[in-house]
Amino acid sequence: MGETAINFAEKFAKFSEQWSPKIIAQMNDYHFKIVKIQGEFVWHQHAETDEVFIVMDGELTIHLRDGDVTLKAVRCTPSPAVSSTSRRRRASAA
Amino acid sequence: MGETAINFAEKFAKFSEQWSPKIIAQMNDYHFKIVKIQGEFVWHQHAETDEVFIVMDGELTIHLRDGDVTLKAVRCTPSPAVSSTSRRRRASAA
Repeated sequence: MGETAINFAEKFAKFSEQWSPKIIAQMNDYHFKIVKIQGEFVWHQHAETDEVFIVMDGELTIHLRDGDVTLKAVRCTPSPAVSSTSRRRRASAA
Repeated sequence: MGETAINFAEKFAKFSEQWSPKIIAQMNDYHFKIVKIQGEFVWHQHAETDEVFIVMDGELTIHLRDGDVTLKAVRCTPSPAVSSTSRRRRASAA
């Protein structure tokens, strides 16, 4: 998807259905997906890869075989931007 | 690093030096790092891999050969949690 700024809030505003992940960026052969969820999801297994979850709003409890992990998020509209980039670059920050 | 909840705010509070990335999670052979930056960084090149930047606070401009990309973040304390997990699990969200 190249080197573009991606606004989470804009992406989340584009859909309302739950449990329907949307790909918003790619890094090498990994996808970044956003999803809206509420309620319970079925037990499932991912033997082939790790996954990482970042909670942007609300709370997520993942029931693992070894116990529960609860992830909490900030109480404000999430809109950090994400950019997938490679190649030559220079950064400035303020 | 297994299936644990990671609090960004706590991790950011543990250091103050700039341009010194800290690894906070791993997914397969990828690292998740946090960093505090201000000012300009030198031109450099990453031919071997893509990288993704998520701005948690402030603003970041990346100067690419094809033009600039500016990433902005929310104006509040960032504290979404990240969890690296694999294997069997079930999720509940509210």
